[in-house]
Amino acid sequence: MRFGFRLAVPFLALLSAPIAAFAETVRWDDQVSTFSLDNGMDVVVIEDHRAPVVVHMMWYRAGSADEKPGVSGVAHFLEHLLFKATDNMEAGEFSRTVAANGGSDNAFTSYDYTAYFQRVASDRLELMMQMEADRMVNLRLSEADILTEREVIIEERNQRTENDPGALFNEQANAAMYMNHRYGVPIIGWRHEMETLDLQDAQDYYEQFYAPNNAILIVAGDVTPEDVKDMAERHYGPLEANLDLPERLRPQEPDHKAARRLVYEDPRVAQPYVSRAYLAPERDNGDQKTAAALMLAAELLGDGQTAFMTQRLQFEDKSAVYATAYYRGTSLDDTRFTTIVVPVPGVSLSEAEANMDRVLQEFLEEPIDTAHLDRIKRNMRAQEIFAKDNVQGLANRYGRALTTGLTIKDVLDWPDVVDSVNEDDIKTALRDVLQERTSVTGWLTSDAEAAK
Amino acid sequence: MRFGFRLAVPFLALLSAPIAAFAETVRWDDQVSTFSLDNGMDVVVIEDHRAPVVVHMMWYRAGSADEKPGVSGVAHFLEHLLFKATDNMEAGEFSRTVAANGGSDNAFTSYDYTAYFQRVASDRLELMMQMEADRMVNLRLSEADILTEREVIIEERNQRTENDPGALFNEQANAAMYMNHRYGVPIIGWRHEMETLDLQDAQDYYEQFYAPNNAILIVAGDVTPEDVKDMAERHYGPLEANLDLPERLRPQEPDHKAARRLVYEDPRVAQPYVSRAYLAPERDNGDQKTAAALMLAAELLGDGQTAFMTQRLQFEDKSAVYATAYYRGTSLDDTRFTTIVVPVPGVSLSEAEANMDRVLQEFLEEPIDTAHLDRIKRNMRAQEIFAKDNVQGLANRYGRALTTGLTIKDVLDWPDVVDSVNEDDIKTALRDVLQERTSVTGWLTSDAEAAK
Repeated sequence: MRFGFRLAVPFLALLSAPIAAFAETVRWDDQVSTFSLDNGMDVVVIEDHRAPVVVHMMWYRAGSADEKPGVSGVAHFLEHLLFKATDNMEAGEFSRTVAANGGSDNAFTSYDYTAYFQRVASDRLELMMQMEADRMVNLRLSEADILTEREVIIEERNQRTENDPGALFNEQANAAMYMNHRYGVPIIGWRHEMETLDLQDAQDYYEQFYAPNNAILIVAGDVTPEDVKDMAERHYGPLEANLDLPERLRPQEPDHKAARRLVYEDPRVAQPYVSRAYLAPERDNGDQKTAAALMLAAELLGDGQTAFMTQRLQFEDKSAVYATAYYRGTSLDDTRFTTIVVPVPGVSLSEAEANMDRVLQEFLEEPIDTAHLDRIKRNMRAQEIFAKDNVQGLANRYGRALTTGLTIKDVLDWPDVVDSVNEDDIKTALRDVLQERTSVTGWLTSDAEAAK
Repeated sequence: MRFGFRLAVPFLALLSAPIAAFAETVRWDDQVSTFSLDNGMDVVVIEDHRAPVVVHMMWYRAGSADEKPGVSGVAHFLEHLLFKATDNMEAGEFSRTVAANGGSDNAFTSYDYTAYFQRVASDRLELMMQMEADRMVNLRLSEADILTEREVIIEERNQRTENDPGALFNEQANAAMYMNHRYGVPIIGWRHEMETLDLQDAQDYYEQFYAPNNAILIVAGDVTPEDVKDMAERHYGPLEANLDLPERLRPQEPDHKAARRLVYEDPRVAQPYVSRAYLAPERDNGDQKTAAALMLAAELLGDGQTAFMTQRLQFEDKSAVYATAYYRGTSLDDTRFTTIVVPVPGVSLSEAEANMDRVLQEFLEEPIDTAHLDRIKRNMRAQEIFAKDNVQGLANRYGRALTTGLTIKDVLDWPDVVDSVNEDDIKTALRDVLQERTSVTGWLTSDAEAAK
């Protein structure tokens, strides 16, 4: 589903090609409006007029999982390079200009998207659009940029990954989970491939994915859809669609038939733990109930002091210092449902794992604590209300959704979908996911022998 | 190293571009000669004049590991499709013509190569060249071919893989071994991807890889290099080189930091076993000694009644019905060193694995049985002599070598390299390979619980 929310708007037929009449603006609620530009760029406006500030975000439907084999890290590398020179700006001028105008800016890369954002006074929005449109198509990379910035991302990998046994462990566990899909390759890249990234690799990725018909503009804050449309037409409208944009079909996982385990031993590990990941379905357009059930299962199991794993392992058994479960449903392709148990000193990882298995089994067998479930749902409804006050958070939410195959309607429906999930739904979804054959169990330890 | 044996022949400078003067014929020994055509096609002639027959083989430096993501199986699919119609032949006409001329033909696909061969009376060689040259560039695929042949390869997968728990187990274990390289994807393809292979996928692979400058012609039997050159120039000479042939650089493995394990449970398993694979270096051009040492280690450990694992586990312990080790060094990229123990009834896989570990350790610690090593080397020298009588075997050997980065000289040097390996070399090479962190241990069982 490339064109995000388009399937939910009335003028689908007109919009299916990048060159089309403007869609009429759709107002989804009192905050959110959408429209598309002629060249296929989708635009989301989130209004909040309480303060004269605005967040301007550009999301690309391209992340590390869209990279070609052999150039892992290039999506993130290019994110760095987008702060270099264009035909109209010097290297570093973008961020200097934002700062000189009293704003701040940054960018981030994930498996399914790359995003750039600035937070500025609302009367500076047009300047942001002008600069963002410029670097979408006018980037002028030099060999010197490549050499310096490649050092920067390798240093970033050193900091984030090489120096962190837990991060290295996650990398190895992800690689063991995904047999075919690029979610098994780290977003930041395999070190040996990062070291060979060159100008051509960055340029290829840029030319393939950076185009208005692969982008979603999200503007949140003290603006009106009319003003945004006017400015967006002026600055982004003239950019040409990439008519060769490939369909976003990535290799999918084959059947997982054999449970995998791994042990990562690293003398730097101070706190050993066991993790278990299961391949799990993601939120799908129009079909979010299983994902909602899994999200609730993760919260019931592992979120907070009253969670099931916490109660059983931290308070009753006293066998764990920490236990949790998490599920990231906002993903274009199959994701993971993960549980973690950090044992108290004296409890081996083998025992911790047995405890984990026992508690998951008990959770499936015992009735769900209805009061706890209601509390989680109530809390989520409250969060929905608070969320409306945090337009940057909302902008992130829509950006993630629209770059992972969901629509505005899916995002708006989500609270009701979550609310409709009952105990049976949760147990069915969780039971379907907790298939040993799709699982990866990992031990992180400073001493593999002692962990047994 | 794309151009196989060229680095070893005198006219390197002239040969580095596909369009070049003919290299002079190089005679490597009393059997083997090589030369190249103008368009970059390499030719190997292996003479054997004892009978008026000839084997005509066309090897492409393209196998399943050269596929793009998402189209696994297309290399093998195309191998099937090469027996369909061309501009000059009907579907099936190729094999019918070979048979009508009293010959036989077939083809095979591996990770690093695809090869086609015919065995015919030597006076039919020119006809083979004419037909093989035709299908290298004139294939005319139809949608009907795709539909019927796709059913055939899926049925082949059913027979070879889906119906064989051991094959499914190997697939899952390979996927767990390779975190980045396409050796983790089965040659025949993932079923869900095979089902979507289409005309364009096959055509793309064909156009990318089927060209004289990506091919090695091997003619073995009752021919002279002069005759082969004459005919090859006539039939293959006019074919145009593919100047867009990509460099053969495939994604390499990152550091393996965490030993992986997997359990594949299948009720059809009659004979459970444990396998252990370690990532291992392959034979490299000019640098084959480690590979030779690993090959000898595998033979010492697991080949035949007097092998170390066999002796300890089958005869002394009586804990195994079978134990073996193998190493396939002829590979373009990192390969595996594998050991297998099949326990006797009543011995669990857990015990079998402990026995495997113990025996590997004992092998490293105890002196190598010199008489055994000498016997293996003597046997290999004898095989080398016998090999000269089996020209089809020799043709395969050269084809595999030249499509995996080795040269004619490497093949000719191999017996001496093996002969030069001593006990220390074997232990050093094996010790370097037996790194737990690079290993994948697999259990194949009908009952995972009982296996523990």
